[in-house]
Amino acid sequence: MKSTVITVPVRRMGPATRDEQDWVAVEEPLEIKLGRRTVAITMRTPGNDDELGVGFLFTEGILSQRDDVTGLHTSENGVTVKPRRGLALDAARLRRNFYTTSSCGVCGKASVDAVRVTCPFPARKGSPIVSATLIQQLPTLLRKAQRGFDRTGGQHAAGLFDTQGTLIATREDVGRHNAVDKLVGRAFLDGALPLRDAILVLSGRVSFELVQKAAMAGIPIVAAIGAPSSLAIETARRLGITIAGFVRDGKFNVYSSPERITA
Amino acid sequence: MKSTVITVPVRRMGPATRDEQDWVAVEEPLEIKLGRRTVAITMRTPGNDDELGVGFLFTEGILSQRDDVTGLHTSENGVTVKPRRGLALDAARLRRNFYTTSSCGVCGKASVDAVRVTCPFPARKGSPIVSATLIQQLPTLLRKAQRGFDRTGGQHAAGLFDTQGTLIATREDVGRHNAVDKLVGRAFLDGALPLRDAILVLSGRVSFELVQKAAMAGIPIVAAIGAPSSLAIETARRLGITIAGFVRDGKFNVYSSPERITA
Repeated sequence: MKSTVITVPVRRMGPATRDEQDWVAVEEPLEIKLGRRTVAITMRTPGNDDELGVGFLFTEGILSQRDDVTGLHTSENGVTVKPRRGLALDAARLRRNFYTTSSCGVCGKASVDAVRVTCPFPARKGSPIVSATLIQQLPTLLRKAQRGFDRTGGQHAAGLFDTQGTLIATREDVGRHNAVDKLVGRAFLDGALPLRDAILVLSGRVSFELVQKAAMAGIPIVAAIGAPSSLAIETARRLGITIAGFVRDGKFNVYSSPERITA
Repeated sequence: MKSTVITVPVRRMGPATRDEQDWVAVEEPLEIKLGRRTVAITMRTPGNDDELGVGFLFTEGILSQRDDVTGLHTSENGVTVKPRRGLALDAARLRRNFYTTSSCGVCGKASVDAVRVTCPFPARKGSPIVSATLIQQLPTLLRKAQRGFDRTGGQHAAGLFDTQGTLIATREDVGRHNAVDKLVGRAFLDGALPLRDAILVLSGRVSFELVQKAAMAGIPIVAAIGAPSSLAIETARRLGITIAGFVRDGKFNVYSSPERITA
């Protein structure tokens, strides 16, 4: 069985700086197949993949009773649900049932091993350089600009700051990927891409998808109040993006490209 | 401009019970069109829809520069990005770029006004009845069973409890919808659906999608540590599902079907 958590090297920055190992949640793509047909690819934590495949197909209304399933096969990052003969597989209905959400940049290759990100603006190693003190202040600055959250407790915020800690823009949304898309869309419309000297600050956790969006916009540093996933870290390392996580209480962890942050 | 937050009636249950109004974040579908083609429907908080449409299409690699956009039109729940003539619109590439994630049960009708949920197991009014004291204890019981979270801070947990507060099953995942799909998939495989006497407990917020999944499984009560969205509440009301939110510190709010919970 695959692990649900793994350890990664992390630089802890607070009163002192220490390089240690820390646990992160594993995030990997799962390909869900109904018979020979790929129905969905979803980012998930490995484990109980058979349940996830069946649960997904049931809650989407494709499976309706236990007898609809005649077999289950799981592989490393895939689950195949074998439907009973005669289960109505109206292709059009299948297609309509799944509306697409923000894609994470998973490319269209048949294999889920082919998760790749195409970056128009590759990161520049070691640039920009910002201080740990600045990083620590960003969540407070974001929170001050975050009006909706105070009232509902139900919105994610994303903010863009320059390397002096000045707020460029902030957006709030029930979907954190939407808040980031709005920021990047604003910059796109303003002709401001790539955002080579910007820091993306997030009110929650960091998934693969959010790192992919930062990469597309040329953003070199992502600072989040929450935890990054394993695939977020792996992607950030490959693309040379700095992830600071758990930025709170005057300290934080750096998971990738720590050379951009000075103690 | 549409509101990003609205007030809803809420029953506050703690030392005393009070019926009040409270703010919740608005969640509504947005249809993103490139020219005449619907590329995606995403759940979002209204506002800056033009940025969201453009940002989404850019971070997905469909738009690459400012000049690719020759016009922008927003309607109540839609945004149309008019591409420059000649922008390569390889239909196959578009399709491949968007992998489908858990669908929220948005049906396939062309209009985003047609968000509907099909429930195989309609809720029974006023059943089951549980005490406020039980609801208050559930997050602590879930947390105890939640091993991954303690190590990474990066996983969402979902738990199924019976009406006595006994844990039936718990699942953790970087995606909260996956954790719920795993629970429902287990019940499906065990022939245990509908879960008419179960309570679904969530470690985070409640989106439309999670209410839809509970509804599909016949789960009558959803109790969450976080906030529900406007569409989660609206859907729960329509389907007769009880939502308890902000279940923490010995109190909580009930947003729908409060008759299932006794003070």
